[in-house]
Amino acid sequence: MSKQKRFYLSEKELPTQWYNIQADLKTKPLPLLNPQTKEPMGVEDLAHIFSLECSKQELDFTNSWIDIPEEVLDKYKFYRSTPLVRAYALEKALDTPAHIYFKNESVNPLGSHKVNSAIPQCYYCKQEGTTNVTTETGAGQWGAALSYAASLFGLSAAVYQVKVSMQQKPYRSSIMRTFGAEVTGSPSMSTRAGKDIITRDPRHPGTLGTAISEAIELATTTPNCKYTLGSVLNHVTLHQTIIGLEAEKQMEMAGEYPDKIIACFGGGSNFGGLAFPFMRHTLLSGKKTEFIAAEPESCPKLTRGKFEYDFGDEAGYTPLLPMYTLGHDFKPANIHAGGLRYHGAGTLVSQLIKDGLMRGEDIPQLESFDASMLFARTEGIIPAPESGHAIAATIREAIKCKESGEAKVLLFNLSGHGLIDMTAYESYLNGDLQNYSISDEEISNSLKDIPKVEF
Amino acid sequence: MSKQKRFYLSEKELPTQWYNIQADLKTKPLPLLNPQTKEPMGVEDLAHIFSLECSKQELDFTNSWIDIPEEVLDKYKFYRSTPLVRAYALEKALDTPAHIYFKNESVNPLGSHKVNSAIPQCYYCKQEGTTNVTTETGAGQWGAALSYAASLFGLSAAVYQVKVSMQQKPYRSSIMRTFGAEVTGSPSMSTRAGKDIITRDPRHPGTLGTAISEAIELATTTPNCKYTLGSVLNHVTLHQTIIGLEAEKQMEMAGEYPDKIIACFGGGSNFGGLAFPFMRHTLLSGKKTEFIAAEPESCPKLTRGKFEYDFGDEAGYTPLLPMYTLGHDFKPANIHAGGLRYHGAGTLVSQLIKDGLMRGEDIPQLESFDASMLFARTEGIIPAPESGHAIAATIREAIKCKESGEAKVLLFNLSGHGLIDMTAYESYLNGDLQNYSISDEEISNSLKDIPKVEF
Repeated sequence: MSKQKRFYLSEKELPTQWYNIQADLKTKPLPLLNPQTKEPMGVEDLAHIFSLECSKQELDFTNSWIDIPEEVLDKYKFYRSTPLVRAYALEKALDTPAHIYFKNESVNPLGSHKVNSAIPQCYYCKQEGTTNVTTETGAGQWGAALSYAASLFGLSAAVYQVKVSMQQKPYRSSIMRTFGAEVTGSPSMSTRAGKDIITRDPRHPGTLGTAISEAIELATTTPNCKYTLGSVLNHVTLHQTIIGLEAEKQMEMAGEYPDKIIACFGGGSNFGGLAFPFMRHTLLSGKKTEFIAAEPESCPKLTRGKFEYDFGDEAGYTPLLPMYTLGHDFKPANIHAGGLRYHGAGTLVSQLIKDGLMRGEDIPQLESFDASMLFARTEGIIPAPESGHAIAATIREAIKCKESGEAKVLLFNLSGHGLIDMTAYESYLNGDLQNYSISDEEISNSLKDIPKVEF
Repeated sequence: MSKQKRFYLSEKELPTQWYNIQADLKTKPLPLLNPQTKEPMGVEDLAHIFSLECSKQELDFTNSWIDIPEEVLDKYKFYRSTPLVRAYALEKALDTPAHIYFKNESVNPLGSHKVNSAIPQCYYCKQEGTTNVTTETGAGQWGAALSYAASLFGLSAAVYQVKVSMQQKPYRSSIMRTFGAEVTGSPSMSTRAGKDIITRDPRHPGTLGTAISEAIELATTTPNCKYTLGSVLNHVTLHQTIIGLEAEKQMEMAGEYPDKIIACFGGGSNFGGLAFPFMRHTLLSGKKTEFIAAEPESCPKLTRGKFEYDFGDEAGYTPLLPMYTLGHDFKPANIHAGGLRYHGAGTLVSQLIKDGLMRGEDIPQLESFDASMLFARTEGIIPAPESGHAIAATIREAIKCKESGEAKVLLFNLSGHGLIDMTAYESYLNGDLQNYSISDEEISNSLKDIPKVEF
C-alpha cells in the first residue's frame, strides 16, 4: 500500500481564528507615518482608505488571535481546507533524502491564495455599508480574487492592473470581467496619478506601485468606495494565516514538523500566511525553524534593499512604511512573476529580517522556470511563475540535503497555478526567457527619491 | 454552524476497482465490425491499435468489476478523491427547492476528468513495452491529460489537436508542450489522411474525426507506438467510473441519493464515468433515476442522429461502431465546447438510449454560457464550456423543481474548469457568441456517406 500523499482537514477541523503575529513580537515594528505630518497613523487615518475593521486589525498589537467571522468561514468552505501534499515524485526525481511537503493553494476557484484575504476584506466592506471596492493587481491573481469576492457580496469592483502584466496574461482580465469587475490598465489616464506617470514616461510598463496609486486615488475621490490590498500590510497577512494554521494541523497528521519553511515573496502575504503560525512556536518556545523568503533576483529588496521609511506606491499616497525597499519608483524588469515585482517588503517581514528570524534568497528567472518544469513533470501541477521561486529555493535545500545526507523536512507554499501564465512557459520552451540581474548603481539611484525620515 | 458543502474520501476510502457496466447489461451492444470484412472484431484486432489490456477491457462482457492496478491507484492519489460539492449558492440564486450537487473533476492538475483514463492507458502501454503514444484532442483537455500521463511513465507523446480548437485555446498546446509532448494541428500534411482532407478542403477547421484519423495512422505506421483515446470507447468510460464510484460514497456521506444525474456529452466518457455506477442500481435493483446527457444543439447526435454502423473517424480507419451518429464527415459549428464536437455517441450509450435507460438533451451555446456565468458568480468556479452544458441542463431541472415545488436531488459532473477557455468568455462578455442550430437537411446530407451495414 502506498503512503499517504495528501492531507485534508474536514470542514469541522478548519481553523476558526487567524493568527496575529504582531501581538507576540518582542520588537514591534516601527509605526506607519502620515506622509504629510510624519506622525504615527491611527485607526481613523487608515480608515479613510481601508474598511474600519481592516484598519483596526492593521494596528492590533495585543490580540494574538482574531475570530474569523461566521460568514467568512462559510465562504472559505467553498475551497478550504486546501491539501497539504507530500511531493514523493519530486523527491524521487531529485534523489534527495529530504521530505518535501507543499501546501497547495492553487486548488481553489481562483487558482491562488489571494482569495483568502479578498473574502474577509469584501465582507467587512459590505458590513460597513460600502458599495464599491477598488484595488490594484499585478499578475492578476489578486484582482481575480477580489472580483470574485466582490461578486459574492454584491459589491462593485474596479481593478487597476499593471499594464505589462495585462498584456502578458490577457486571460486574467477576462476572469475579472467574468466576475463582473471593471478592469483598467495602469498607468492610465483615468487618474491624476496615472496622468502624471504617463506624462513623465509615456511607455511606462506599470508596476504595482503605479497601480496602487491609481486605486487609492479612486477610493479617496469616490463616495462609498474603499481600497483593498492584496499583500504588504499586516491585516492581509493576518487573513492569510489560515494557510499556515491548516498546514500546522496537516503536518501533525503527517507526523512531522518542518525544519525549513519556504515561500515566494512579493509583498509577503503568502509567505507570512504560511510562515507566521509556525514562527509562533519559534517566538514562544524557541522552536528552531528556518524561514526562507524567495524573491526574484531582479527585484531583491530583502537581500539588497535598504531599511528606510518609504511609500508603498509610486505617487506617494500611502502611509510611510518602515521597510526594506528598493525605492518606491524602482522599475523592476518585466519578469513573468508579476506578483513579485514590488519594491518594498512590508513592515512585519522587514522587522523579522532585522531581528534575524528569517532570511531572503534571490532566485534568477531561469532557475525558477527550471524548477517549475521539473515540478510540473513530477507532481503534475504547472506552478505560477511566482510560486516557481519557492520551488527553486526548496530544490536548493533538497540538494543540500542530498549532499549532507540529512533527511530534513521542507515545507513550501504553492501559492498558485500557472495555467493563466502559459505564455511564460511558451517563452521558456522557445528559449526566449532570460535572467535580469541589477547593478548596485541602479539600486542606489532608485533609493535617492525616498523621503528622508529619522528613526 | 453552516452545513457541510464539500465531501471528500480519504485515500484509504478510494475505490480500488472500476465498474464495467457491459457485464450487467441485459441487452449487450452490437459488436464492433472490421471495416473491410464486416466481421466482429476480436481483442487481437483491437490490439493492433490499442494496448492489449485496453483491448481486453473493451470487449469484456463478463466481469462487472476490474481491479485498478496498484501503480494507477498510486497516481490517482495525486488528485483523488475529487470533492462532491453541495451547490448551496447556486440553489439560492435559482430560488429552487432542489438539492444540487456536483462532482468537481476540475480540481486536478490538468483541470478535467480526462486524466482518469490517461493514467491507466499510459500505464498499460508502459507495461506492454510500448515507448510512444499518440492521440487526438479537441479542446485539448484529453491531450493535456495524455501528455502529463505519458511524462509520468516516461513515454513519448504525439498529439493531433483539432486546428480550430488549437487557435481558440493556444494555452492548451503550451500545456502539452510543457509536459514534453509534440503537438500538431489537424488536419495536417504529416499524414496520408490529413493530406487527403486538406486537398479536398484546404480550410478544413478540423474535427475530432480528422484528428483521430491522423493519430491512428501514426500509431499503425510507427514501430512501438500505440493509439490512445479520450472518450467514446468502453474501456475509456470504464476508467472514468472512478468518478461515479467516488460520488456514490460521497452522496452517502451527504445522506442523499440522486433523482437525476446529468453530465455533458461529447463521446460519453465523463457522462458514463459519473452515471454508470449509479445506473448499476437501476439495472440490478430497479432504482428509479433519470440520466440526462447534455449535448450541444449544434451537434445533436443523441436526439437527432440515426442509429447506424459508422466510423469513429473521418478517414474510416476505426472499427465500425453501432451508434447514434450524424455521419463521420459531419462538420459541427465552431462552438467553444470543442470537446463536444463529435459526430457519434459510442456503442454503450447508444444502446442505453435505445433501451430507454437515459436520454439526451440539447443545449444552445448561449444558454450554456448563461448557465456558466451564473455558476461562476455563485459557486466561484469558471466552468469549461463543455461542462456549461451540464450546468444548463441542471438549471432546467432546478427550475422545474421550483415550479412543481419538489425538492429533487440533482447531481451533475463538473468535468473541467474553463481557465484555458477565457477567450470564449471574453466573446460572451462582448456579445459575440451565437447559437448554431442545424437543419434536418444538413443532418440527412452528412448521413449519406455512412457505410451500409445490415444489422
